[in-house]
Amino acid sequence: MKQKVAVELGMDFTLKQFPEDIHRAQLLAEIERFNADPKVHGILVQLPLPAHLDERSITQAVSIQKDVDGFHVSNVGKLALRGETPLFVPCTPQACMELLKRSGVQIAGKHAVVIGRSNIVGHPVAELLLKANATVTVCHSQTQNIADVVRTGDIVVAAIGQPAFVRGDWLKPGAVVIDVGINTSPHPEKPGAMVLKGDVNFEEALPVVSAITPVPGGVGPMTIAMLMQNTVASAQRSVSSSLPAMHLLP
Amino acid sequence: MKQKVAVELGMDFTLKQFPEDIHRAQLLAEIERFNADPKVHGILVQLPLPAHLDERSITQAVSIQKDVDGFHVSNVGKLALRGETPLFVPCTPQACMELLKRSGVQIAGKHAVVIGRSNIVGHPVAELLLKANATVTVCHSQTQNIADVVRTGDIVVAAIGQPAFVRGDWLKPGAVVIDVGINTSPHPEKPGAMVLKGDVNFEEALPVVSAITPVPGGVGPMTIAMLMQNTVASAQRSVSSSLPAMHLLP
Ligand SMILES: NC(=O)C1=CN([C@@H]2O[C@H](COP(=O)(O)OP(=O)(O)OC[C@H]3O[C@@H](n4cnc5c(N)ncnc54)[C@H](OP(=O)(O)O)[C@@H]3O)[C@@H](O)[C@H]2O)C=CC1
Ligand SMILES: NC(=O)C1=CN([C@@H]2O[C@H](COP(=O)(O)OP(=O)(O)OC[C@H]3O[C@@H](n4cnc5c(N)ncnc54)[C@H](OP(=O)(O)O)[C@@H]3O)[C@@H](O)[C@H]2O)C=CC1
Repeated sequence: MKQKVAVELGMDFTLKQFPEDIHRAQLLAEIERFNADPKVHGILVQLPLPAHLDERSITQAVSIQKDVDGFHVSNVGKLALRGETPLFVPCTPQACMELLKRSGVQIAGKHAVVIGRSNIVGHPVAELLLKANATVTVCHSQTQNIADVVRTGDIVVAAIGQPAFVRGDWLKPGAVVIDVGINTSPHPEKPGAMVLKGDVNFEEALPVVSAITPVPGGVGPMTIAMLMQNTVASAQRSVSSSLPAMHLLP
Repeated sequence: MKQKVAVELGMDFTLKQFPEDIHRAQLLAEIERFNADPKVHGILVQLPLPAHLDERSITQAVSIQKDVDGFHVSNVGKLALRGETPLFVPCTPQACMELLKRSGVQIAGKHAVVIGRSNIVGHPVAELLLKANATVTVCHSQTQNIADVVRTGDIVVAAIGQPAFVRGDWLKPGAVVIDVGINTSPHPEKPGAMVLKGDVNFEEALPVVSAITPVPGGVGPMTIAMLMQNTVASAQRSVSSSLPAMHLLP
């Protein structure tokens, strides 16, 4: 899907597949080669990695200039800091914000409840909502009375990984719901077949909320759009910066 | 105060004071000198800086190995990421956690409300509470119905900078309150004299809460203790690591 969209947009796209048992050093050398290649503006390590490869050290090997996933520790730090702007923001969280923005949802001052705190979705989306001046609550597997907590949310982002986990009566009437979950779940009628389900019980939510993103659709396609946007921004940056580094003068 | 405690603990302490109009390049050179000095294990840039100096670029110049304040972007990023441990955690947030721990307060599963989202207190304390498995809400100046939000907190951390801002009836009965605020406010009886006040109305809170930190006392002294702890940890690290850098083998 990423490849299809990139090619449609006229980007050069290289899908490098490696043997399941690739050596760490070899994979790092491949990443280093892309880091050094001036024709490459974005590098994405498709997760999950095989168990013998340490996810963090591999993703951290991607040059911060080409980290279109926004997973580099320096980009994460800058996302957390006021007064700093990361070079890249993770795509799925950015997609959530883009959907809110496009739907004209007011964020500042509203109470946003994020369910999930993963490095790639829950945590960074909470950072973005906070930067957009929402009051932000983060829930996770150890949250007590989760239904009551979710019910305080004017905006609810569900990034849990459990099909139809969030029930209709957990939602404040009129809430705006972003359903990040992509779960395969058995088809209700066709035995053996599977369907895609979000983390929110869509049928129950629909009469309660003022807006909700569908699964499939919604966050998924927008995530890919954000990846493309990050890559284009990276290419623009690389072209416009003829200087190797900038130093502020005193 | 930092100097007094450090000297009592037998640490070498150097207070470098610079002229108000010091050049940025000169200050950076001084920091570089401390970065390079193997006898120095902790460097702290006392904030606020004069207006002509950019706070972020100065604090970021401190070596990540000696960043006892925990303000370096890489330490901030690691604090935000699951599966990562920063070299240093900012001292005041760490002090809040230490106070909760020493008082035997259960954090996991509890609802923690943090008022304030600054880089040095509110934001990192929210990260620490989340890492300790609290459900975490962050409030700030744009939060609507703040009293109602604060009232959901089993644990409330106030880091606002407004004397006695949090009222007694904003608190859930039995809540545990950490008052980070240090505000000078006119003495109620002696005209012209000043008193120190926290961000919480202590007298109103006392009958409602199960525990509250006093101001002065409480978070302030514990913050200095955490700074000393960070410095000692840094010295230990520097002694025990004879290798200049460590690389994981595949
Ligand atoms: N649309 C898109 O483009 C994308 C969709 N996704 C989808 O989003 C979902 C989340 O992904 P990801 O963040 O990577 O998942 P993770 O498994 O990394 O994180 C799941 C989070 O949900 C929390 N959680 C799990 N069970 C519960 C529960 N019973 N109650 C409350 N919280 C719970 C976990 O809590 P704890 O931290 O305590 O373990 C954790 O923080 C998945 O369905 C995934 O497929 C992911 C990426 C992109
Ligand atoms: N005990 C100790 O060792 C230390 C104590 N302190 C004390 O802690 C307090 C906070 O310090 P610091 O974090 O540096 O301060 P900052 O001024 O950097 O941040 C204050 C935070 O409080 C929020 N805030 C301000 N007014 C309101 C309001 N009316 N309602 C809700 N939120 C509000 C601000 O919101 P917004 O982001 O929207 O502007 C901001 O996030 C101060 O009193 C300071 O003296 C600080 C450091 C160490």
